[in-house]
Amino acid sequence: MTNRQLNLNAFIYPTGHHEASWRHPGSVPERLYDVTYFQELARLAESAKLDAVFFADGPALRTEVKYRPDYGLEPITTLVAMATVTTHLGLIATASTTYYEPYNLARLFSSLDHISGGRAAWNIVTTATDAAAANFGYTEHPEVHERYARAREFVDAAIKLWDSWEDDALVLDKAAGVYADPDKIHRIDVEGDYVKVRGPFGSARSPQGRPVLVQAGSSNDGRDFASTYAEAIFTAHQRIEDAQAFYTDIKTRAAAFGRNPDHVKILPGLSPFIGATEAEAKELQREFNELTIVEYGLGQLQKMGRIDVSRLELDEKVPVELFAGAGDITDNDNSRRLVFAKIVEREQPTLRQLLHKLAGARGHNVVAGTPVQIADIIEEWFTNGAADGFNIMPPQYPQGLEAFASQVVPILQERGLFRTEYTGTTLRDHYGLPRPESQYARELAAAGV
Amino acid sequence: MTNRQLNLNAFIYPTGHHEASWRHPGSVPERLYDVTYFQELARLAESAKLDAVFFADGPALRTEVKYRPDYGLEPITTLVAMATVTTHLGLIATASTTYYEPYNLARLFSSLDHISGGRAAWNIVTTATDAAAANFGYTEHPEVHERYARAREFVDAAIKLWDSWEDDALVLDKAAGVYADPDKIHRIDVEGDYVKVRGPFGSARSPQGRPVLVQAGSSNDGRDFASTYAEAIFTAHQRIEDAQAFYTDIKTRAAAFGRNPDHVKILPGLSPFIGATEAEAKELQREFNELTIVEYGLGQLQKMGRIDVSRLELDEKVPVELFAGAGDITDNDNSRRLVFAKIVEREQPTLRQLLHKLAGARGHNVVAGTPVQIADIIEEWFTNGAADGFNIMPPQYPQGLEAFASQVVPILQERGLFRTEYTGTTLRDHYGLPRPESQYARELAAAGV
Ligand SMILES: Cc1cc2nc3c(=O)[nH]c(=O)nc-3n(C[C@H](O)[C@H](O)[C@H](O)COP(=O)(O)O)c2cc1C
Ligand SMILES: Cc1cc2nc3c(=O)[nH]c(=O)nc-3n(C[C@H](O)[C@H](O)[C@H](O)COP(=O)(O)O)c2cc1C
Repeated sequence: MTNRQLNLNAFIYPTGHHEASWRHPGSVPERLYDVTYFQELARLAESAKLDAVFFADGPALRTEVKYRPDYGLEPITTLVAMATVTTHLGLIATASTTYYEPYNLARLFSSLDHISGGRAAWNIVTTATDAAAANFGYTEHPEVHERYARAREFVDAAIKLWDSWEDDALVLDKAAGVYADPDKIHRIDVEGDYVKVRGPFGSARSPQGRPVLVQAGSSNDGRDFASTYAEAIFTAHQRIEDAQAFYTDIKTRAAAFGRNPDHVKILPGLSPFIGATEAEAKELQREFNELTIVEYGLGQLQKMGRIDVSRLELDEKVPVELFAGAGDITDNDNSRRLVFAKIVEREQPTLRQLLHKLAGARGHNVVAGTPVQIADIIEEWFTNGAADGFNIMPPQYPQGLEAFASQVVPILQERGLFRTEYTGTTLRDHYGLPRPESQYARELAAAGV
Repeated sequence: MTNRQLNLNAFIYPTGHHEASWRHPGSVPERLYDVTYFQELARLAESAKLDAVFFADGPALRTEVKYRPDYGLEPITTLVAMATVTTHLGLIATASTTYYEPYNLARLFSSLDHISGGRAAWNIVTTATDAAAANFGYTEHPEVHERYARAREFVDAAIKLWDSWEDDALVLDKAAGVYADPDKIHRIDVEGDYVKVRGPFGSARSPQGRPVLVQAGSSNDGRDFASTYAEAIFTAHQRIEDAQAFYTDIKTRAAAFGRNPDHVKILPGLSPFIGATEAEAKELQREFNELTIVEYGLGQLQKMGRIDVSRLELDEKVPVELFAGAGDITDNDNSRRLVFAKIVEREQPTLRQLLHKLAGARGHNVVAGTPVQIADIIEEWFTNGAADGFNIMPPQYPQGLEAFASQVVPILQERGLFRTEYTGTTLRDHYGLPRPESQYARELAAAGV
């Protein structure tokens, strides 16, 4: 046994990650615009001592909303409401560098970090859906290389904004009449190709200095970006071998960029169906799969997998040739296609079987088993260089998180793999990440001022 | 007595509206990044049955932060936190049409409205400070005419986004597998000169249909904009005659645009120093004025008044000629200059006296008196066509709001001018505004579908 501890997030998808979760009798789709629903989930996650809750997001409506709830509430505002009913839980919101302005987004995350007392994190995405472009006056969604070029400038600017007030810029000297020290508040003068921001920022430095930076790139550009900036990386793998290869690749890249690989947490998705026996868990999974809507699944497969299955019968085997070129990570927007391709190659499913396979969590690792079996998988990946922790993706909220919290977490705690109490108060504390000093403080110190 | 009721907002400025409030012994400038401070203010405002709290904002740091706290936390996130500890209080955030993207901002306000159960309002500003431009890659701040042209397209697009889901778009039919009705979710296809948004929106229609729209324009363009869109209008006047002229002008313009003038609430600022006697109130005001910092006041006067006083001695009279052209409302960014000019013309103050006059609330109406005297002024303006209510701007938070809530509000209630209990739950209810139907529902109805 080792001191190394798992990091566990609850990845929130409104009614759960299984695409048919909202149809299940226990589901409450009518509460998705009721913030107390999310506050209850936050309390539940905190009672299990999880590191954080995490919201995905995108600035466009999924067209498939007929068949399935999409994110409704905006994530940062939702997380503020969740922050007010918790004290330790980390709060991770996804936001796009392609479709936001750095000053505005930096301000929202800074506020979330202040309001939560240092629990904010930003899942940096470049947004892969074409639909977003038309909501922002673009005729085309920029291609992945350009998106990541802008993302770099964006994140650099955001970091400078957060750093622009040194930690001790607030003076608060009533007698002298000095509220803040202007010499400790810096212009940032960013003049990039995509992003220009002068600063200084409108807010004092936040408790974590900077929110934790999270990323989920899988392409070559995406991995380079993640290895440069990300302190936690989300990823989707079905098999430990693939996860290990990804883990090694990212840690190696991070080291090559001069970073401490321990400060880059790799967190694959894991969607557990939990039962008292394995058979019971599999029966639960079958029950959910029976509620899927074929039309929805086909649409997802074509959109996320970028393949055309319109001529296939449901009980026909999916030809692996449909996924030609999926292994090329220098290609754009290919990561989910690759995950799908591997499933088809390995399991040779019929179209119906593939749809069921993906229904659980869009290509993330879905497992059905007893609490001990789930804990075993977690431990295996954790101790064999495949993961530093997991994004737990319950098939159904809140029931799937309740089951994980009450049945799997205690096993991980008994095995010494997961905290029984929070040992710090910020998300940086939970992830074991240092609190970065302001780069402007360093500059001045270097200049001997 | 009449049924007509006052609308009263608490206009929040971190430590209070008097520029030296933070230096006063009772002030807590160290709590400005502590969200519980703002939550306490929200509870206080709600206990007094106020209509709303209101935050100003701008996407740039004031350079004078040396001498005075600026807004630190971002307003929408702060209001979410305030929403979670209240049930009726309206929540008004300022945000800029010049420096935001419609899709992103519409989403934040929609979420605030959902999270608060229908209490959100947007104070629409075009941002008048040059400093903001440089934070968004502009070489120059666009001039007022262009800013309002973009603002119109922006607000039209935001309204369409909020309307794009009809109120009954959520079907929630688990058995049939239909979560939402795509026929009741509309593309908006906005193709303006400044703003292009296709939609549909990512969120269901919010409790108020649309957040309440608030505005504070004073120029000709600004007044036209306000009369077209705004449901509440903020304004600054020192004398009842000026307020009456503004009131008549706006109500006339609104009627000319085919609107019901009762659905445009006009709310001037009022900053009350409250004492058991008038002398005590004036002594309190003097105490605050003694804490002002001349350098700060001069900077504000030059920036907001757009005049050069660098050659004047503090005890020299301010020559009214400095304000030449201030009366021209077709000129840009002239409104505060005009307010200042009127003070100088009427009161012929020395520079020091003018600085003290403006220290209270930047040109808003500062009054020092007993609770009855304050209530008398409010009643006089309210019953004589100068105001539908007020933005109360306490010189100091929380003390100034406590005094207003406990001493002035009861008098207004006794006089039948202000509610003793909330009669509705949304801000639209408090302001007596209708809940707008989705324009897409109307279109279809008109087409006989
Ligand atoms: C767990 C997880 C969550 C993700 N959440 C989002 C999201 O909320 N919004 C989004 O636009 N992309 C999201 N992505 C996509 C990634 O940001 C990334 O674009 C994708 O993995 C493809 O990699 P690439 O950008 O390097 O091509 C997510 C990916 C993973 C693995
Ligand atoms: C009570 C009040 C609050 C205001 N708050 C803001 C604000 O938060 N941000 C901002 O940029 N402008 C603010 N303004 C300025 C107005 O939006 C407007 O720009 C100004 O009154 C000048 O009018 P004009 O835009 O028609 O020239 C405020 C004005 C008033 C009277």
